[in-house]
Amino acid sequence: MAGEPLAAIVSAGLSKFGKLEGLLSREIFLQAFREAIDRCPNLDPRRDIDSIYIGQMSESFEHQSHTGPLIADYTGLLGKPASRIENACASSGVSLRIGVQAVKSGMSDVVLVGGVEKMTHLGIADVTEYLAMPSDYPLEQLNGLTFPGLFALMARAHMHKYGTTEEQMSLVAVKNHRNGAKNPKAHMQREITLEQALSSRVVASPLKLFDCSLVSDGASCLIITRPEMARKFTDTPVFIVGSAQASDTLGLYERDDLTTSYATREAAERAYKMARIEPKEIDVAEVHDCFTIAELIAYETLGLCKPGESGKFIEDGNTEIGGSVPVNTSGGLKSKGHPVGATGTAQAYEIYLQLIGAAEKRQVGSADIGLTHNLGGSASTAVVHIYRRGG
Amino acid sequence: MAGEPLAAIVSAGLSKFGKLEGLLSREIFLQAFREAIDRCPNLDPRRDIDSIYIGQMSESFEHQSHTGPLIADYTGLLGKPASRIENACASSGVSLRIGVQAVKSGMSDVVLVGGVEKMTHLGIADVTEYLAMPSDYPLEQLNGLTFPGLFALMARAHMHKYGTTEEQMSLVAVKNHRNGAKNPKAHMQREITLEQALSSRVVASPLKLFDCSLVSDGASCLIITRPEMARKFTDTPVFIVGSAQASDTLGLYERDDLTTSYATREAAERAYKMARIEPKEIDVAEVHDCFTIAELIAYETLGLCKPGESGKFIEDGNTEIGGSVPVNTSGGLKSKGHPVGATGTAQAYEIYLQLIGAAEKRQVGSADIGLTHNLGGSASTAVVHIYRRGG
Repeated sequence: MAGEPLAAIVSAGLSKFGKLEGLLSREIFLQAFREAIDRCPNLDPRRDIDSIYIGQMSESFEHQSHTGPLIADYTGLLGKPASRIENACASSGVSLRIGVQAVKSGMSDVVLVGGVEKMTHLGIADVTEYLAMPSDYPLEQLNGLTFPGLFALMARAHMHKYGTTEEQMSLVAVKNHRNGAKNPKAHMQREITLEQALSSRVVASPLKLFDCSLVSDGASCLIITRPEMARKFTDTPVFIVGSAQASDTLGLYERDDLTTSYATREAAERAYKMARIEPKEIDVAEVHDCFTIAELIAYETLGLCKPGESGKFIEDGNTEIGGSVPVNTSGGLKSKGHPVGATGTAQAYEIYLQLIGAAEKRQVGSADIGLTHNLGGSASTAVVHIYRRGG
Repeated sequence: MAGEPLAAIVSAGLSKFGKLEGLLSREIFLQAFREAIDRCPNLDPRRDIDSIYIGQMSESFEHQSHTGPLIADYTGLLGKPASRIENACASSGVSLRIGVQAVKSGMSDVVLVGGVEKMTHLGIADVTEYLAMPSDYPLEQLNGLTFPGLFALMARAHMHKYGTTEEQMSLVAVKNHRNGAKNPKAHMQREITLEQALSSRVVASPLKLFDCSLVSDGASCLIITRPEMARKFTDTPVFIVGSAQASDTLGLYERDDLTTSYATREAAERAYKMARIEPKEIDVAEVHDCFTIAELIAYETLGLCKPGESGKFIEDGNTEIGGSVPVNTSGGLKSKGHPVGATGTAQAYEIYLQLIGAAEKRQVGSADIGLTHNLGGSASTAVVHIYRRGG
């Protein structure tokens, strides 16, 4: 049985992910917020919500920072304390964790946590430059090393040490596109074949186009409260029973081993301990597949399989819907899309749907325990949350 | 008597403020961190500190975001959860509040909170553009309205409604430079005359050069813990007894009244209530004087004087060292400097020194209760903290 709940999710919302032309991030966030409000008729947002934490990675995309009060105003929550959290692509994973602390501290009763990013209106050169900012400027960015290159180094190291193959990485893309094809909010709702993935153009060898996640617009949010208050708002709460975060060096040049994620291992260990569960008890997980190699490494660092065995683990179908531990049923960053600041709470949204049995065509069957794994930068931040279905 | 402590400050550090050539923000932060560590020999940072919250306003200044893990690595705290908070110039005021929640939630025992910004290596056009990002992009920035213009609108409204004069605003600058001249870490350690302030060149009428705070590099930090753990680390803890934050519209165009700060009034009211103290009990305060008009409005919205009477309040010498409530003994943003992300915890550093009696030439005498007031953007975020000297 999982540990004592830290907080309860009583509602959640997600915007459409994709190219949302003509909308500002404040407007995209409203799509997610309205869904969360509509799902939770017992909640009066203005009366009940008493603080707001919003993940947004980059001020550069829209020349706009100070997202906290901006979102407070546009959601009708003017006056409430509202803050922006930035931990690269883990921004809203961290927002969730800070929201859990706010609730647990007794300084807030009901917290809106979420994330948003608007990226598709810019050219790829600008997007790539802005996306590179969370990596080490003087020693990586300045020398032209951007994230596809950084993750390609990890992929090469993993191939060299464990014999992991390009086919095995491509299987991640194929699986996640298969799942995303069932998700009406996903950016790319279409299946791909292994051949398509393997023959797509090289971005940073060994990573090809279909090893890379998408540049998307989107927003996500959750309404969380103290566990004992959850039934006031919903009959189907989902409890957060583990919440942990760890850091690693910004630069890859400082690391001993590129085949693993120290931050993920550390955060996962703490989260499992807090939740009092073992990796084998996870029924469904959303992991950070910014590149396909990242999903394989996540299997290992989250303890779903042993180090070096992730290639075999996906080949055997373990992480398919219907497998022993379905991973990225939403389509993941690869097919659902990756509006960077929104990704952490979008992962939590999917787990929330799975645990309340509302994931429709991609429902894994009855699931009691879920996990999310959100990375920032070159895994310089890792945030792991563990969820339990309300009894 | 003030309310129950939420958290305790057991140490604090501040870098030199000013033009710190050749240093990256990660290196500047180390100056502040080392002071905090040196002040607190009973603290073993690697063993004791279990999370990190860093305020930094802009990724654009150094083309570098993801400041949380970067600071964790450079302070020798690699692996610890470390996050960046962005609420414009209130970024580290919010970091402090999030740190208080982390401690109070029981999810952390000892937290490093702080802020940093490196700005002076850029030209003024770039700095002005990047500083404008927390204002409303489509409706303010895009039309050329930057912060001097926004605060000039507030100044004009205050002059029109209450008869506030340019001389009264200049008195803020004169007082803060007088205080800053006694602060060896201040950016501009020199006194100015009322005539100099009044005759300085116009930036955005009625605001002149000496009504504006400085573009500075700098960093600040605090070590906070649970109140009951404080004596393990120090004999002179300072307790945080009030911590509140509120938001206002990003754009001024949405506000009913430009002569006040709704967010400050709201945050102050909550903080006073939490601390169970009255404004008249404040012995020393650091308020957000990004422009001189902002300090005058702060006197009113923090309840130090009545609405419209701030001009008279400073003329009567109330906020001088030796007055009824000394304000900005550090020199404030005006003379100490304003490395934007560092300002919130730099204000707390000054109050910490005053309450432990370590403010040297600018010491106000024995002070029991202190207050900090940190604004983000056009007062779209306000954070108020109230402090009590350990008994």
